[in-house]
Amino acid sequence: MPSISVKGREMPASPIRKLTPYADKAKQEGKHIYHLNIGQPDIETPQIMLDAIKNIDFKVWAYTPSEGTVSYRTKLSSYYNKLGYGISPTDILVTNGGSEAITIAMQACIGPGEEIIIPEPFYANYNGFAHSAGIEIKPILSYIENGFALPPISAFEALITEKTRAIAICNPNNPTGYLYSRKELEALRDLCLKYDLFLLSDEAYREFCYDGNEFLSPMHLPGLEQHVVVLDTVSKRYSACGARLGCMITKNEELWRTALKYAQARLSPPAVAQLAAEAAVDTPQSYFDAVKEEYTARRNTLVAGLNEIPGVYCPNPGGAFYVVAQLPVDDADDFCQWMLEHFAYENQTVMMAPASGFYSTPDAGKNEVRIAYVLNINDLKNALVCLERGLAAYPGRV
Amino acid sequence: MPSISVKGREMPASPIRKLTPYADKAKQEGKHIYHLNIGQPDIETPQIMLDAIKNIDFKVWAYTPSEGTVSYRTKLSSYYNKLGYGISPTDILVTNGGSEAITIAMQACIGPGEEIIIPEPFYANYNGFAHSAGIEIKPILSYIENGFALPPISAFEALITEKTRAIAICNPNNPTGYLYSRKELEALRDLCLKYDLFLLSDEAYREFCYDGNEFLSPMHLPGLEQHVVVLDTVSKRYSACGARLGCMITKNEELWRTALKYAQARLSPPAVAQLAAEAAVDTPQSYFDAVKEEYTARRNTLVAGLNEIPGVYCPNPGGAFYVVAQLPVDDADDFCQWMLEHFAYENQTVMMAPASGFYSTPDAGKNEVRIAYVLNINDLKNALVCLERGLAAYPGRV
Ligand SMILES: Cc1ncc(COP(=O)(O)O)c(C=O)c1O
Ligand SMILES: Cc1ncc(COP(=O)(O)O)c(C=O)c1O
Repeated sequence: MPSISVKGREMPASPIRKLTPYADKAKQEGKHIYHLNIGQPDIETPQIMLDAIKNIDFKVWAYTPSEGTVSYRTKLSSYYNKLGYGISPTDILVTNGGSEAITIAMQACIGPGEEIIIPEPFYANYNGFAHSAGIEIKPILSYIENGFALPPISAFEALITEKTRAIAICNPNNPTGYLYSRKELEALRDLCLKYDLFLLSDEAYREFCYDGNEFLSPMHLPGLEQHVVVLDTVSKRYSACGARLGCMITKNEELWRTALKYAQARLSPPAVAQLAAEAAVDTPQSYFDAVKEEYTARRNTLVAGLNEIPGVYCPNPGGAFYVVAQLPVDDADDFCQWMLEHFAYENQTVMMAPASGFYSTPDAGKNEVRIAYVLNINDLKNALVCLERGLAAYPGRV
Repeated sequence: MPSISVKGREMPASPIRKLTPYADKAKQEGKHIYHLNIGQPDIETPQIMLDAIKNIDFKVWAYTPSEGTVSYRTKLSSYYNKLGYGISPTDILVTNGGSEAITIAMQACIGPGEEIIIPEPFYANYNGFAHSAGIEIKPILSYIENGFALPPISAFEALITEKTRAIAICNPNNPTGYLYSRKELEALRDLCLKYDLFLLSDEAYREFCYDGNEFLSPMHLPGLEQHVVVLDTVSKRYSACGARLGCMITKNEELWRTALKYAQARLSPPAVAQLAAEAAVDTPQSYFDAVKEEYTARRNTLVAGLNEIPGVYCPNPGGAFYVVAQLPVDDADDFCQWMLEHFAYENQTVMMAPASGFYSTPDAGKNEVRIAYVLNINDLKNALVCLERGLAAYPGRV
């Protein structure tokens, strides 16, 4: 039988996938795993959104315009304008998830061989999107010691070359949960204006800000209108990850028109998801209040619990539903695998995402893990017990 | 206000988009347009599929596995195995439409700077997908004189270099409607085996074969198991273009695993669409029989009507719902625009896709148009009258 090879076509694997075989084996052995490794919330989708699916009344499940339906874009712009973005429906390009919004924005803003600067640790799939587009990511370290605050502007400037076309941030951040301040965003604005760089703002976790902190977007900053590209998704906002609906927003008309060409090649975003997401814009505030309350309680439980474990350090982030914690281990990749392969407490164990996969700089974040608080408080508490016992038993403890 | 530019990030526009501004203007002027330019069927989606949407009963609209749900892949494999593909569910990778299946297959098979050979005219969005991936398409002319049959194998061999990684066909063909014969497919098989090339088989129109012609896939040809990549979609099969659901099928495990990495970066295909498409596998044969009967009648009306117009030549294709016809005009791009801008018969006109956009070779297909028979027979007849009158009045007639 002939064997035809695709050697050389590999692309960076997501760090949350590497441990899957060990998790599968642990499950086969009958262990219960607390999945703190993934970004799939357990929160229910708003009823108004599910009802919209059930109430579809078309006879032909047709393509929508490549940029999304007028009706959805109009309704969606009202959501953003309540937040003060001051956009028009025609600034919105509807996409197949936030994932495609990021891909299209990168392709439309940045050419093959050109560069984008991203503070690390960052959402690991940016690597895949950049790889597909032949774009180089220049990482810039942020540190657990100051809660993963924005690196100093001088560190950005040191990386800017004639190939640099954009800076990307994720706010609130995945994986760190860090919420950028007005001061940090204003500093980024000045930098982008100085060097004429696009500022890609991934706001997948916008609705998840805690402790009364207000979410601020580069869209709120005067002067940056031609440079800001917001990347968004309904995945986390409405716990509707399976809808595969996102959008790219820019007031830069040339960029929008260029991005549209990429969108036209793939014809259309999903039709039912647009109907559902249009209805979801009317989700009552009480839904978000309840979700925020739940996540705040989880985060408080998790962060306090982590910091009580000897040798563990975890900052208290302002948003999203992730934390990055430092563990008293030599190598968090090994430790996370060991927890699945060799450890159980009362037949239970914990699956976490080693943070190394969220860094590009070699050896950065070697003793860090990302933990998603997508489980209820009771499960989180059990998971914390497992983790503490696991750390106590781990041979590679430092 | 600063202006930041994306010059150089343009990508090839789809030929069916170029005339949109003229169509919009014609509509504003109150003209009725017969849209023979698009691939959106007017056929109803099977009721069983629409019911599946209405009957969803989940509470969390969650991500599915990146490769699609086990349940859908299992059911879907039964569809293919009834056709004799002999595949297993694990050979299937579920995608966001056929569009993404093509993109991922290209990326996984072909590296930036490498080449794929495609007979032209071809589905114009292949240009966009290849462009995004940095891949070069080497076109190879087929001719209206023999109904756009497969070009001779010697013409393929003349194009093969050390950079060639794959050949792609679309069968039945968009835009020509041509249905490849067993002899043609076997010749392609031998070629792919000789040079160790992937054979990408875009089968979006598989269900649309007429006159008792049987559909044959490279999947049916023994010996080619490691080389065939089927690209498919539910868009046309079930008139469910808005579902955004397709798949890539390959028995080449290394290729499948590589493609999965690209799929994992974008997380998940749409969840509701998978539920609906799983139900759709049970669409009764009577649905397809009725659709085929309708399209056959339309094609017969269209092809006969076209050939009755003085100076027009149109082959009678075996599949899909498109024809490419030759018109007695100097430049079909100009003519199609003129029909929208300057012509009306009883306040009606016709919108067609100039075929030039489906060719890469400069000046090829200059007097050809693609016509989609996605309108009912009565509208088709009216459109034919418009076209005949338009041709008679056109100043650039030859
Ligand atoms: C930071 C960030 N951006 C984008 C996405 C993509 O989400 P989706 O493609 O589901 O919209 C995710 C998903 O986890 C994310 O965490
Ligand atoms: C030949 C061919 N391939 C692929 C596609 C993509 O279809 P979709 O992305 O809707 O599945 C189309 C759509 O018209 C097509 O004509």
